Amino acid sequence: MESYKYDLVITNGICVTASDIASYDVAVKDEKVVLLAPSGSLAKANARRVIDAEGGYVTPGGVDCHVHLEEPALFGRGSSSDTYETGTRSAIAGGCTTIVGFAPQPKSEPSLLSALAQTHVRARGNSYCDYGFHLLVGNPSQQALEELETLSRDEGVTSLKIYMTYTALQLRDDQILSVLLKARQNKIFTMIHAENGDVLNWLTDQLEAQKLFDPKYHSHSRPPILEAEATNRAIALSSLISNTPILLVHVSDPGATLRIRQAQTSGQPIYAETCPQYLFLTRDDLDHPGFEGAKCVCSPPPRDKASQETIWTGLRNGTFAVLSSDHCPFNYDDAEKGKKTCISDEFPVGRFKEIPNGIPGVETRLPLVFSAGRLPLTKVVEVVSTNPAKLYGLYPRKGALIPGVSDADIVVWYPESKKPNLTITNSMLHHATDYTPYEGRKVGNWPRYTILRGKVVWDRDNGGVVGDKSYGQFLKRGPSTLDGLWETVEEQGPFDVASL
Amino acid sequence: MESYKYDLVITNGICVTASDIASYDVAVKDEKVVLLAPSGSLAKANARRVIDAEGGYVTPGGVDCHVHLEEPALFGRGSSSDTYETGTRSAIAGGCTTIVGFAPQPKSEPSLLSALAQTHVRARGNSYCDYGFHLLVGNPSQQALEELETLSRDEGVTSLKIYMTYTALQLRDDQILSVLLKARQNKIFTMIHAENGDVLNWLTDQLEAQKLFDPKYHSHSRPPILEAEATNRAIALSSLISNTPILLVHVSDPGATLRIRQAQTSGQPIYAETCPQYLFLTRDDLDHPGFEGAKCVCSPPPRDKASQETIWTGLRNGTFAVLSSDHCPFNYDDAEKGKKTCISDEFPVGRFKEIPNGIPGVETRLPLVFSAGRLPLTKVVEVVSTNPAKLYGLYPRKGALIPGVSDADIVVWYPESKKPNLTITNSMLHHATDYTPYEGRKVGNWPRYTILRGKVVWDRDNGGVVGDKSYGQFLKRGPSTLDGLWETVEEQGPFDVASL
Amino acid sequence: MESYKYDLVITNGICVTASDIASYDVAVKDEKVVLLAPSGSLAKANARRVIDAEGGYVTPGGVDCHVHLEEPALFGRGSSSDTYETGTRSAIAGGCTTIVGFAPQPKSEPSLLSALAQTHVRARGNSYCDYGFHLLVGNPSQQALEELETLSRDEGVTSLKIYMTYTALQLRDDQILSVLLKARQNKIFTMIHAENGDVLNWLTDQLEAQKLFDPKYHSHSRPPILEAEATNRAIALSSLISNTPILLVHVSDPGATLRIRQAQTSGQPIYAETCPQYLFLTRDDLDHPGFEGAKCVCSPPPRDKASQETIWTGLRNGTFAVLSSDHCPFNYDDAEKGKKTCISDEFPVGRFKEIPNGIPGVETRLPLVFSAGRLPLTKVVEVVSTNPAKLYGLYPRKGALIPGVSDADIVVWYPESKKPNLTITNSMLHHATDYTPYEGRKVGNWPRYTILRGKVVWDRDNGGVVGDKSYGQFLKRGPSTLDGLWETVEEQGPFDVASL
Amino acid sequence: MESYKYDLVITNGICVTASDIASYDVAVKDEKVVLLAPSGSLAKANARRVIDAEGGYVTPGGVDCHVHLEEPALFGRGSSSDTYETGTRSAIAGGCTTIVGFAPQPKSEPSLLSALAQTHVRARGNSYCDYGFHLLVGNPSQQALEELETLSRDEGVTSLKIYMTYTALQLRDDQILSVLLKARQNKIFTMIHAENGDVLNWLTDQLEAQKLFDPKYHSHSRPPILEAEATNRAIALSSLISNTPILLVHVSDPGATLRIRQAQTSGQPIYAETCPQYLFLTRDDLDHPGFEGAKCVCSPPPRDKASQETIWTGLRNGTFAVLSSDHCPFNYDDAEKGKKTCISDEFPVGRFKEIPNGIPGVETRLPLVFSAGRLPLTKVVEVVSTNPAKLYGLYPRKGALIPGVSDADIVVWYPESKKPNLTITNSMLHHATDYTPYEGRKVGNWPRYTILRGKVVWDRDNGGVVGDKSYGQFLKRGPSTLDGLWETVEEQGPFDVASL
Ligand SMILES: [Zn+2]
Ligand SMILES: [Zn+2]
Ligand SMILES: [Zn+2]
Ligand SMILES: [Zn+2]
Ligand SMILES: [Zn+2]
Ligand SMILES: [Zn+2]
Ligand SMILES: [Zn+2]
Ligand SMILES: [Zn+2]
Repeated sequence: MESYKYDLVITNGICVTASDIASYDVAVKDEKVVLLAPSGSLAKANARRVIDAEGGYVTPGGVDCHVHLEEPALFGRGSSSDTYETGTRSAIAGGCTTIVGFAPQPKSEPSLLSALAQTHVRARGNSYCDYGFHLLVGNPSQQALEELETLSRDEGVTSLKIYMTYTALQLRDDQILSVLLKARQNKIFTMIHAENGDVLNWLTDQLEAQKLFDPKYHSHSRPPILEAEATNRAIALSSLISNTPILLVHVSDPGATLRIRQAQTSGQPIYAETCPQYLFLTRDDLDHPGFEGAKCVCSPPPRDKASQETIWTGLRNGTFAVLSSDHCPFNYDDAEKGKKTCISDEFPVGRFKEIPNGIPGVETRLPLVFSAGRLPLTKVVEVVSTNPAKLYGLYPRKGALIPGVSDADIVVWYPESKKPNLTITNSMLHHATDYTPYEGRKVGNWPRYTILRGKVVWDRDNGGVVGDKSYGQFLKRGPSTLDGLWETVEEQGPFDVASL
Repeated sequence: MESYKYDLVITNGICVTASDIASYDVAVKDEKVVLLAPSGSLAKANARRVIDAEGGYVTPGGVDCHVHLEEPALFGRGSSSDTYETGTRSAIAGGCTTIVGFAPQPKSEPSLLSALAQTHVRARGNSYCDYGFHLLVGNPSQQALEELETLSRDEGVTSLKIYMTYTALQLRDDQILSVLLKARQNKIFTMIHAENGDVLNWLTDQLEAQKLFDPKYHSHSRPPILEAEATNRAIALSSLISNTPILLVHVSDPGATLRIRQAQTSGQPIYAETCPQYLFLTRDDLDHPGFEGAKCVCSPPPRDKASQETIWTGLRNGTFAVLSSDHCPFNYDDAEKGKKTCISDEFPVGRFKEIPNGIPGVETRLPLVFSAGRLPLTKVVEVVSTNPAKLYGLYPRKGALIPGVSDADIVVWYPESKKPNLTITNSMLHHATDYTPYEGRKVGNWPRYTILRGKVVWDRDNGGVVGDKSYGQFLKRGPSTLDGLWETVEEQGPFDVASL
Repeated sequence: MESYKYDLVITNGICVTASDIASYDVAVKDEKVVLLAPSGSLAKANARRVIDAEGGYVTPGGVDCHVHLEEPALFGRGSSSDTYETGTRSAIAGGCTTIVGFAPQPKSEPSLLSALAQTHVRARGNSYCDYGFHLLVGNPSQQALEELETLSRDEGVTSLKIYMTYTALQLRDDQILSVLLKARQNKIFTMIHAENGDVLNWLTDQLEAQKLFDPKYHSHSRPPILEAEATNRAIALSSLISNTPILLVHVSDPGATLRIRQAQTSGQPIYAETCPQYLFLTRDDLDHPGFEGAKCVCSPPPRDKASQETIWTGLRNGTFAVLSSDHCPFNYDDAEKGKKTCISDEFPVGRFKEIPNGIPGVETRLPLVFSAGRLPLTKVVEVVSTNPAKLYGLYPRKGALIPGVSDADIVVWYPESKKPNLTITNSMLHHATDYTPYEGRKVGNWPRYTILRGKVVWDRDNGGVVGDKSYGQFLKRGPSTLDGLWETVEEQGPFDVASL
Repeated sequence: MESYKYDLVITNGICVTASDIASYDVAVKDEKVVLLAPSGSLAKANARRVIDAEGGYVTPGGVDCHVHLEEPALFGRGSSSDTYETGTRSAIAGGCTTIVGFAPQPKSEPSLLSALAQTHVRARGNSYCDYGFHLLVGNPSQQALEELETLSRDEGVTSLKIYMTYTALQLRDDQILSVLLKARQNKIFTMIHAENGDVLNWLTDQLEAQKLFDPKYHSHSRPPILEAEATNRAIALSSLISNTPILLVHVSDPGATLRIRQAQTSGQPIYAETCPQYLFLTRDDLDHPGFEGAKCVCSPPPRDKASQETIWTGLRNGTFAVLSSDHCPFNYDDAEKGKKTCISDEFPVGRFKEIPNGIPGVETRLPLVFSAGRLPLTKVVEVVSTNPAKLYGLYPRKGALIPGVSDADIVVWYPESKKPNLTITNSMLHHATDYTPYEGRKVGNWPRYTILRGKVVWDRDNGGVVGDKSYGQFLKRGPSTLDGLWETVEEQGPFDVASL
């Protein structure tokens, strides 16, 4: 029997969206936001549950569109320490209500649909939060390219990721052009991992020839110029296909950032993502005694302090549209599938080139950036929730608090008076990974409640994870709506080689 | 007797804010937005009045922070053709519910408070829309600088404008530094008119020496480099005072735009405004037979087609935070106070250097840009309403639709099915000026209703201007909240000459 | 019996070197310049021959370091229409006394020394001018890389050329790094043909898929961005190997030029070459009826008028260190080995992708640029003679007029009063190619005499080519001396991957 | 009786010009270079004097075109410690054979010719080296502007200097335009001292208001941005007058350098000068105990280490055409006319704003830069001798070694084997100033002989200064010939305000 007017009311909060910050109340019904009303006015509404935010911030749920879960071992022996179950559990505990993961197509597999189907199997019924998939295109076969239409039209998959590095995945420039051309035709958005793979392989060989195997040399094998060069190349390829929109993922380097900014300045549809590791870690974190540095081995590697400042500036001035986690976790103390697979008698402190690349971060993303005090909170919501939703075709269902329209995906943060004194330790996190690169770091706030489609799934003070792994839904996504980007593409018309 | 739950409901509209575009209903009570609810859900609410938006767009009221009204003849014989009454009447008919005008301090007047008091007299009781004032600082006397604290703290005046041109107003660079220093200390935001006055005087003399007096030579006297140079200088001065925030007003030139962009790229607090005249007019509009070109004489002058494209790109990519009208009207066919004051027996087609500078535009600003189809509508709302409100300390009372917080300043546009087939003619406008530079131009939409603090003041199909000139209120403004700019300033600390 | 004090005297000329322009006399003895003396002072010297320059310009002989002769058909069916004999005959008739040709190493050949030996055979005894070789590295095998030391130390080959395009020659980025590393260690200077080969192959396929086969589509297959991208990449690779010096050959595009300029601005050892075809031809020259456009098919293709201006500016301001011909001739009306090899029943106006790439130009280079009036003559001498000699280790033997030091390689031009009224026609040229792309173009001056090591080898008014194909000598070259570039490299020390 | 074939022969030297470095002999007759011959070939020539260079370098005499001597006290109480006699004595002892000094026109003096006449009186018969004058335009009166034609046509004065700073001299932007316009018409080259005077006055007041008077605050009063801003403005003014050539003098700041470089990149005729103080001193040299820092007070002030590197790079890549001394000496321990005039009871360690600005350096310029090992020697000769001669219309009489053409102005340096072990001390210098800012600095070489028009005027090991103060001649200069700059100006035609 349903006698309540609202399923949930959040009262006395300071609501923050991508544009606004103000006190008002939010009511939820049938999984949707249904009412925004003056602050306190709904405190006594007829609701199944009323959460008193007590003056704390209330934000749309985090949308993390760069999360690797349960992927097969594409790059070597290591494989992900998180399943969809554990990864999404970690997500909601960190205020993230939607993730977009990857459906990886190995080189040996000509079909994207097949890769997608396999990924559905892994995620279905195993997700604490809502989820979608990007296709990770390892083999842009004729078949794969033709399947893009189906993916976009029928499967709700409107984005893909390609690599300019990693032997198992690296596409040549002509292959990238083929992908961009088909993506443009099908309003599919292309994410590019821009590091020059040939160069890094060469550098790796040089390092190994000098017996330099320690984790810290991971950074030497991928110097900034290698990222800046590939970024410039990716932008050139985009411009060649009549300015087809792309996103440079996990940008870490000021040189790459500047190149992206220049393209944006001249009106090209170049988007960029950065990640917490480029705001909070540096290359020094790879240079620890023994094998410890492996905990921070990801690609691109963290840079220096000055680079961090440039990345913060880029977030503030809009160069970066989104801040994702690039959650890509491997256990540290695991010689079977984790970081230590690269340790052997021959390489007692490991061999950097075989360290599985990636770090966990889906749970810490929001708390780190929300409480850093470096950005206006509206900007934080924009880059961690609203823009990802818009960019990946989830908006306005996700990333917003629009009555009758948006899913009731909401995070309630602690008010000043009840702020926890938090030091991050791995034991408080909910992934299945045996470490966090942020161990010992203080953060000023943390999600008190995470609400997914109107249901409290994380209640930090009363049970922690109270959601259910069968509750998360697959999200069919439409074309990107950020900045009206496909309208702009349509105005420019299709790529025409004869007009070059 | 008050038996209505709401004073006004707007139902079935597509609401557009700076971040969101979606269908939902808006309820108003006691001059405020009080409820946002699912689309159609309030159609039958207990409201004094229900406006059915019929699928048309619903936006926050326009905020035009660059409007010259009833200013004394600072620059020569011409004086404004619009009073506060006629100017604000024009504003509401064009969807603009808030203006910020100027309180001009002549060089002969050492006090700013005195200038402010005189301006209050002109506006009080004579405004159809809400209004605030910037101080136009013509004489940065010691007294004036000391009054800034009072202006900011007590008078609700948190911005000022200074000039790098016009003999009557031009400040030297050292005077600008004094202004910036005091402005920084008092969280007052500084608008700068950046054209090199010494250079334009010299060019004017050169043109006159060659008997080149036609209106079109106004453009020759103010070439783009003169704006780019002054813009670079203004940015240098800002950076010298520990990066004190400034706004470059009415930017027209790609060179200036690029310089601004570079400063933003490196994280400096440099903001910029542009105006419809730089999107819709070109220098060719000054080159008409006889004296006609004088109708488009404003400063900086409109540039060329390529420059227009750069300005559109700058709006799209965020280089320009705001789009204002720079409404500065003079009658054309008026030899006493209008454009034709510069016509004499000696100068039968006028003398460009004496043409009163400025064009009307407060009424056409929103319709022109809203219906141009060049920007996402969220971006339009951002630059014509939300950002101006934030930048000038009016937010969230203005520029937003936040329940319990925002004034119910709302524009309802025509739905597709009822879109008027509009050709702009001066006769349809509501200013007291005898021409519009946009005569004959088609626009695709126009405000159907303009609502100010819950009251319909413009009902295009039923009475037109239905508001009242006594209804507009003076707005005490706080410090700018855009981008958390003063927080950033505080982090950097006060200017310290010893640390240079 | 040798009773003459001088073998040759040139009197009454205006001598032009890279730095100086002034009237003085030059005396020659035993193949060397031996005396510089006041103008006219040697008119009656005891000399075997006295040439009265009659007020005409006297310049060092041209040094053309980018000449393809008698190369095997590496890129398809076409092969060079000029042998060493005919190419060098053409050179001296155009005022060029030294060429550096290419010793091409095919992919199938692991050894560079072998390629060099074969090239020696072709040139020896068959050259009208002095000559050296660059190694054209098609296969950077371990053996090849190890041979670089011998080449530099023993064989007088201190430069090599590599390709980022052409399937038969294209190196991957890691291969380029290997080459740069070894080149740095052996003070070998690296020339890079920077066009993105993968991209152009893709564009070519796209064009062919649309049945676009005409010669003009050669230009569409190689748009400017493809050159700018590869240029950026080459510079990145150079910077990675501790700023190893490179030369970008035949630069045509403003975007590439700007990138080069930026590198030079920041002090990187990046050098650039351009060619007459980028100063005097445009892409319109490829768009002629039928197959005619094939006459101007070279890579990169000529660009537009605005690009020409940028290239002239780049020559003037020092962005381009050298101006070479890139003489790479194929007969036009030749279906066996020339441009028409790509014509068939299926492709009656040819198939652009199979048109042999290249145009003749070794003879017209000096006259075109010397008489264009676009550059100071000292700058002309610098880029056509002195800088090439310095850059490729031929200086001061070549490229200068230093007594006791420089070979007496001298060009005497016509004085104003005797200037020929010249229209270029192929019949007046001395190559073995059946056309010139400059047919019908007027030039203002032409070498009257060309003198090689003291011997007149070209006397335009008395016999034309009067030299001998056995007179040209192979030039063992040392390391580059331009700008003290290797000193700078030595200061920076060897590449150290551990310091990245 | 004249029985010698040559007045002087220099044998066994390594001659360095702007383009060439090689061993050859030089013969001199009647004040001119008359013969260049193979090395050693003139060792036994019939010469009045034979100097055996013993393998040392032989260079053209230094040309220092920025030397202040015996100027009246334009900027305050201080006045130059060097007269023409002592300054030019110092010049020849440092290898400088030509200076161009300034004829200062005070604001109170409408005529330039008058200022010139007075300067002639000071210099005539009192100069050890040859000399010319720039007009220092303090008052661009109508009369002054009209006199430019006479100056250029009759008086051999083809350059002028103007100031954007110093209250006594600062021109407004419109005045600068008037000067540039007339300079263009008369082929007069304009030097600009680019610092923003209004800003520096303001900063000075701020510093004084905080009781910061020490010499080191001179640097705080003139931060880099102030130079970069004025540089940008000067370039804008030049571009406005149809790209009229200018030289930015004494550039010290990387920001200014970059702006200059950008203008050069786009083909504008913007030239730049730097000085040894920006290569060898830093702002730390102003921060010494007590008043010592005053010894390094010059404008712009020396910057930091990183700036020095940028200036070196700018010399190497051609951004700076010339390296001058800006010799502007004041005695240190002199309370009447020297640095200590600013010391008083009230200001016991002085008052930075009253410290006479300038340092001595005409004697140390060549030794410092020649022996620094940072530039190829050809580049050194180019910037200290050949380019100054070309830029200021002295070439080829000065700045070169052309037989029959160039004055025999020659410096012979010590060979490796005889290199003195030199530590600079003021006692070894020949100016009349009581200190050198380079006290204690080691230099690797020094002029052994300085020869002016064939006469040895400095013989370090035998008498030191052996020249005569009556030997120096006034040099009538023609238009600049560097880079064919006036030809380019002529192509562009006169300034036309109607074409803006
Ligand atoms: Zn990646
Ligand atoms: Zn990833
Ligand atoms: Zn203005
Ligand atoms: Zn205005
Ligand atoms: Zn090539
Ligand atoms: Zn070639
Ligand atoms: Zn100066
Ligand atoms: Zn000076």
